[in-house]
Amino acid sequence: MSRVRAHNFSISLDGFATGEGLSLDEPFGHAGHRLHQWMFATRFWGPAGTTGVDNAFAQLFERGIGAEIMGAGKFGPPGWQDDAEWRGWWGPDPPFHTPTYVLTHRPRPPLEMEGGTTFHFLDAPPVDALAVAREAAGDLDVRIGGGPTLLREFLAAGLVDHLHVVQVPILLGRGVRLWDGLEALEEQYDVEAVSTPSGVTHLTFTR
Amino acid sequence: MSRVRAHNFSISLDGFATGEGLSLDEPFGHAGHRLHQWMFATRFWGPAGTTGVDNAFAQLFERGIGAEIMGAGKFGPPGWQDDAEWRGWWGPDPPFHTPTYVLTHRPRPPLEMEGGTTFHFLDAPPVDALAVAREAAGDLDVRIGGGPTLLREFLAAGLVDHLHVVQVPILLGRGVRLWDGLEALEEQYDVEAVSTPSGVTHLTFTR
Repeated sequence: MSRVRAHNFSISLDGFATGEGLSLDEPFGHAGHRLHQWMFATRFWGPAGTTGVDNAFAQLFERGIGAEIMGAGKFGPPGWQDDAEWRGWWGPDPPFHTPTYVLTHRPRPPLEMEGGTTFHFLDAPPVDALAVAREAAGDLDVRIGGGPTLLREFLAAGLVDHLHVVQVPILLGRGVRLWDGLEALEEQYDVEAVSTPSGVTHLTFTR
Repeated sequence: MSRVRAHNFSISLDGFATGEGLSLDEPFGHAGHRLHQWMFATRFWGPAGTTGVDNAFAQLFERGIGAEIMGAGKFGPPGWQDDAEWRGWWGPDPPFHTPTYVLTHRPRPPLEMEGGTTFHFLDAPPVDALAVAREAAGDLDVRIGGGPTLLREFLAAGLVDHLHVVQVPILLGRGVRLWDGLEALEEQYDVEAVSTPSGVTHLTFTR
C-alpha cells in the first residue's frame, strides 16, 4: 500500500513552522525565508546548490509521490477564498506535478495548471481527503504538504507513515507550532536525528 | 571575567524541560527520567558509562565552576518551603561541590552539606543573584542550574554566556517550556548542533 509522507517540513528550535502576520508579501510572516534557507542552498533548489546531506534529504520530496494534500493556509494568504482569481503562490507551473488537494471549507472548481499540477478543493476531514488522494495516487505515495495545522491533524489522526522535519537553529517566538497536542508521538515511530554543516538538524519519523 | 554557563539542560522535541505533575515521587512529573537517559548512559554518570560525544558534553558540567544558581523549583518538590527539614533531592553530598544559590521568595539559613556544597537561599532578581554568585566563584564560572523558568529568566536578561541544551527525541506535550519568550535569542550567539548515536541533539549557544 502506498505511504503517506511529509518532507522538508521546517521548524524553528521553538517549534514554529510559520511566523505571525502571514500576508501576500510575507507568506511566512515574521519568519521570512529563514526557515527555508537550508533548502535554497541545495541542488534540489537550483543547479549551483550543494550536494551534501541537506540536498539528499531535500530531493526525497518528489520521489514516488502521486498526490499532495495541503491546508487552506498553504494555498494562499489569509482571505484568498474571497479572490476568485487566486491560483496559488507558485505561478503557472507549481512544483507539485500531481493532483493536489487543497482542504478548505469553501471549495471551488478544480484548477488545471502547467506541469501536471491540478488543484482540487475539498471540504473533507483528513481521513476522507486521504482516501481521495490515495485513489488519485494509485501505487504512488501521498505527500502531506502542510502547513503546520494540517500536518498536525494528520499526525494526530495517525495517518502519516514518514515524517521529515528540519529544525533550524533560530527562535521565532511566535507563530504556528507543529508539535502541539502530539504527546508521545515518537512511540509510533523510529526516530533518527542528524545535524549537518549548515546548522540544521534533520529528524525522520518512520513506521 | 568569569562566564555564566548552563550545561546538560535537556528538553523534549516540543521544548519541555519538565513534565506536568511534579512531586516528591516524580521530580520531573510525567516526563519521568526520559529527558536524562542520555546522561545516565555516560561515564560522567557512572564508571561503566559511554565515552563518546554525549560523555564529552556531559563532563563539561563541572569544569571550572565556582558557584551554581538554581530556581526554587529545582531545589525541591512543590511546597518544600513549608518543610523545615528539606535539604534538597541529592542526599548528604550533592553534586554541586560549590556554593549553590537557591532563588526563593522564602529564604532560610544556609545549609552546609558534605563535599563542598553549601546551599544559600536568596530572594533576589537574576542580576543581583548573579553578582553574589560571581563574588563567591572568584575567577571561576557560574553555572545556571535551572529549572526552565529560572534559565529562561537568565537568558531573557542576557546574562548567559554559554548554553548547552540537549534535545531528546520525545514529545512530552505538556510541562514547562524552555524557549518561551526568547524570540531571536540566536542572534546573540554562535549556535552549533550535533546529533549523536544515542539519538539526542546537542545544541550549544556561545558568545
